[in-house]
Parts: sequence; C-alpha cells; structure tokens
Amino acid sequence: MADKISRAVIKRLPKYHRYLRELLEKDVRRISSKELSDIMGFTASQIRQDLNNFGGFGQQGYGYNVEELYQEIGRILGLVGEYKTIIIGAGNLGQALANYSSFEKCGFKLQSMFELNPRLIGLKIRDVEVRDIEVIGDYLKEHAIDIAFICTNRDAAQGVAERLIDNGIKAIWNFAPVDLKLPDHIIVENVHLIDDLFTISYFLKGAKK
Amino acid sequence: MADKISRAVIKRLPKYHRYLRELLEKDVRRISSKELSDIMGFTASQIRQDLNNFGGFGQQGYGYNVEELYQEIGRILGLVGEYKTIIIGAGNLGQALANYSSFEKCGFKLQSMFELNPRLIGLKIRDVEVRDIEVIGDYLKEHAIDIAFICTNRDAAQGVAERLIDNGIKAIWNFAPVDLKLPDHIIVENVHLIDDLFTISYFLKGAKK
Repeated sequence: MADKISRAVIKRLPKYHRYLRELLEKDVRRISSKELSDIMGFTASQIRQDLNNFGGFGQQGYGYNVEELYQEIGRILGLVGEYKTIIIGAGNLGQALANYSSFEKCGFKLQSMFELNPRLIGLKIRDVEVRDIEVIGDYLKEHAIDIAFICTNRDAAQGVAERLIDNGIKAIWNFAPVDLKLPDHIIVENVHLIDDLFTISYFLKGAKK
Repeated sequence: MADKISRAVIKRLPKYHRYLRELLEKDVRRISSKELSDIMGFTASQIRQDLNNFGGFGQQGYGYNVEELYQEIGRILGLVGEYKTIIIGAGNLGQALANYSSFEKCGFKLQSMFELNPRLIGLKIRDVEVRDIEVIGDYLKEHAIDIAFICTNRDAAQGVAERLIDNGIKAIWNFAPVDLKLPDHIIVENVHLIDDLFTISYFLKGAKK
C-alpha cells in the first residue's frame, strides 16, 4: 500500500511526525482532524485524506490516537533502527552537519567524514574522523553505509556522487548547489539553500515597492 | 505583472537562474526551450509557460538569449543591490551559515550575530561580531536589516521571531525545527533539515525491502 503514496503526501509526513511528537510531549492523547488542522495549517479534509493512505487510524467521534499515529508514521517513514551516514566534504557546512546532534537523536548516526583538503584530513569532529577521500572505496567495502551527505563545492559534487554510487551507496543528501544527474534507483534529496534565499529576496523586493 | 506569479513558479526561478549562470560560464549565448528542458528536467512547454509570466523573452526560431534571461530573472528575484542579514543563534548551524561565503557572493551580507549563551557572545566569525541577544532591539533601531536567519533551538524560535518582528524585521529564514506562527505580511521560508532526512529514510526503507 505504502508504495503507491504520492510524493506530495510523503513530503508532508515528516511534518505530521513533528507535530504529533509535540502533542505527545504536551501529554495530548487524542486529537481530531479539525484540531490537527488548526495547529498544522492543512485542511481537515486534507489530513483525513493523507492519513487514509495508511489505513485510516481515525475513529468516528474519537479522532486519532496521538501515540499510535506517531508510531505508525514513524514506521512508515522508516524511523526504526539506525541509519549509518557519512559526510563528504569537511568544510564549514560539513562540519556544521557533523556537529548537529539532532540527526543522531533521530537515528542517523555519522560514521565518518571524507575530504580532499590535506589540512582537514585527520581532524576529529565529535569523535568522528575526517578521512582522505582517496580511501572512500576501501572504506565502503568494509562498512555498510546507508546515506552519504554531499557537502563539497559545486564542481566536485557530481563526480563524488558517481564514485559513491559505484561503491554501493543508495541514498544521497546533496547540499552542493547543483542538481545531480544520477540513475533513477538512487535516492536523492537536494538542499539548495541559495534557492531558498532567492525566494525571500523575491518577496522582499515586492514588499519594498 | 510579477505580482500575479504563482508560488510554484517563483520557487522554480532560482533554478532557472542557477542553470543560466552555468550556461553563461560555458559561454552559451542562446538556448531553446527544448535544450533548457533537456538539462533542467522540466518539460519545454513548462519552461515556455514559466518564462511567459515575465513577458516572453523567447523568439520563435532563435530561442532565449541566455545573458538577457539571466539578468531579467535576477531582477525579478530581487538580486539587485545588497541585502543586509543577521543570524540569531551562534551555535553550530549559525556559525556554519556565517562561514558560508556563497551567500555574500550573491549579495546577502551578514552584519551581526546574536546569541543567548555568554560563552559565545563576543566571538568573531569572519569579522562578524556575536552580540548579546538582549541588545537586539537597540541594534535594529540603528541598523536597517533586511533578513534574519533564525538558528536557535526549537523552543526559542517563536519568541525570537516575534521579538524581531516587533523591531521591524520583515523577512525570516527559519532553520529551527518548528513552524513559526507569524503575521501574513511577514516573509518566512523554512528549512526543515530533519524533514528532508525523513523523506530519504522513507525511500530507503522501501529500497531495503
């Protein structure tokens, strides 16, 4: 069933997960689609439709059991067990992501970092070693890694991504400001920070008029 | 005219801008919607429709003048002159964004950082001072700031955002893992990194089956 879920719905699931966790932290045990709608800003009908994709946890006149729904969405999102990650590029952004402890709390455990720049190779960031990018092939033969974060510059990103895939990596989180051209079976999410900033300047320009 | 552009189109403009810059760097002077389609992954008809929003630069049988289109999209995105920015929260993520030189190259100039933690106040990051968050009101009276990046933790973000708005900030780029509830006239873009990561784990779970 979960295989037929549209990408739009999948992109909304983390938001449900986030709000449900907040509700749990506030000891809210059940919630109606109307109440969820009020706090999340989706329409109640959208919420019912989204959650029906997974077999409909809501009961007429009761609403949703927050804990059950939270657990189930977590399972659907694959948030069970641990994912092993590596970071390619140990510059500012790579180091920031390595230091960002929230990922680990959610089950994404950083195993190693890789870098081209000899001045950064050998560094340790929160006990994680920065290795020479030249050893990536050997490393990936010996370690099962689920996700690679690409934090290189624009020009290096495509080559690095291809090298990772040749060595068995199936999922890439790309922070380089370039759209990677990769085989369809590879899972890729892009974070284009500059694109976001340009959206702000677009609206700001309008506001300044 | 530009006021009626849909948000979906606006979100695509930075991508056009990025690809056009790459074409310029490769000395490509003109391009057809078909060629743009091949490199960008949008359909040619989508591209023609998108660009028609701005008065149609394309000429039958010639295609688009890359330089003109790049300049015009830059103008539409408000990439003229300089935007002054501040960062609230000088932890790992705040420091990473402060160090990220690409923003400055695009005209977004960091003026100051603000922080609650006394150990971080007084630091300098690339010549930018970390000030005590307590002086933010006075600072904003004396300095015209266009955009505030919020890099605080989840619990502090909403309060900080309200305080910024009370002091005249019109645009917020929010990195805290929470959806801010702010007046409609405030420009807000959210970067929810964890949400992205959960999308990867969703697909990874499917791939592992």
